[in-house]
Amino acid sequence: MTITITAFERSPDGGKGLARDTRVRWALEEVGQPYEVRLVSFHAMKEPAHQALHPFGQIPTYEEGDLALFETGAIVLHIAERHAGLLPGDANARARAITWMFAALNTVEPPILERETARLLEGDKTWYGERLPLVEDRVRDRLAKLSGRLGDADWLDGAFSAGDLMMVSVLLRLKSSGILDEYPNLAAYVARGEARPAYKRAFDAQLAVYTGKPPTG
Amino acid sequence: MTITITAFERSPDGGKGLARDTRVRWALEEVGQPYEVRLVSFHAMKEPAHQALHPFGQIPTYEEGDLALFETGAIVLHIAERHAGLLPGDANARARAITWMFAALNTVEPPILERETARLLEGDKTWYGERLPLVEDRVRDRLAKLSGRLGDADWLDGAFSAGDLMMVSVLLRLKSSGILDEYPNLAAYVARGEARPAYKRAFDAQLAVYTGKPPTG
Repeated sequence: MTITITAFERSPDGGKGLARDTRVRWALEEVGQPYEVRLVSFHAMKEPAHQALHPFGQIPTYEEGDLALFETGAIVLHIAERHAGLLPGDANARARAITWMFAALNTVEPPILERETARLLEGDKTWYGERLPLVEDRVRDRLAKLSGRLGDADWLDGAFSAGDLMMVSVLLRLKSSGILDEYPNLAAYVARGEARPAYKRAFDAQLAVYTGKPPTG
Repeated sequence: MTITITAFERSPDGGKGLARDTRVRWALEEVGQPYEVRLVSFHAMKEPAHQALHPFGQIPTYEEGDLALFETGAIVLHIAERHAGLLPGDANARARAITWMFAALNTVEPPILERETARLLEGDKTWYGERLPLVEDRVRDRLAKLSGRLGDADWLDGAFSAGDLMMVSVLLRLKSSGILDEYPNLAAYVARGEARPAYKRAFDAQLAVYTGKPPTG
């Protein structure tokens, strides 16, 4: 069955790969599944046809035969459960890998999102300059603990998993901030993720939407 | 094998059931699994022994034989996968129920957490009064869309599932705010969750830790 995902017709990040379709593309590339992409405009995202697929009017969505999913974490988990390559075979190791997916999305990403929200929606407010360091310290609190757990390992728990895919994707949002570089093992961890051939293919595919040029190679 | 979870020795919410161990207790009550609780002080949560179980120094954790998990979403999913009662049997319906778990944790909870963070950590700042309405409008944006999807259904997608358990738990954080009452179908949805016998048992058990009185009945 054909897998079809949705992505921004014009990504607000200008093709930096931070829109969440990149996470789904990366997962599909890791497990070697082809997929099609339906581009959605900002206008169309708010229309009933798209909100029937995604109640919060966002991207990505995932369609495969009769199944329609939204929410990146759920889509990546669905892909990881049905195809080899993103979850270990051992049941306990599998549960731990899924734990890192939730940790990425519910413990590490929220303060990072709060920082982005401050910059995007409150950058013109009088309090922005005084408040931003408070928000960034909340990000640092999570990064320090994550850095402590990772130590000098390559990945969070044994082999690369869907947990690492999600954690690297979340940390990539900090790339331009300089904050990640305060934790050299996390910066190296993110670089290892970006160096994976599957990530590169996913990145190039989302960039091609923005530049209008098909990915090469 | 005995299931052991951790909870606050003294919950910062004074027993209102908003600490995340309630979500895990609720899941275990829904599937009828007994469990033991190890209480952890704020001091002990930051010690290496607990951080070996939970790298971010929080509660709850989950131990069952050789398996140790943290992150509420992962724990509830683990319980739901291993015991009947929280996920439908049909594969597509199961994937959709898991989607609502992720939607609760990564789409609905972040703005609610941002509101709590504003109140707890920035309540004494000069910008608090002007900024809070902005944050609350971000909460409303998500609630309006969730309300639209729920409509007049009892649960988000067919029978009660782990997705509803997580969404109700997230929405309960708004109970004292009055915001939930702006969406009568969401307020009724949360009330349906609270009325479930398994929720009541979970709530009473966490309250008993705070009051020092064992749950009755």
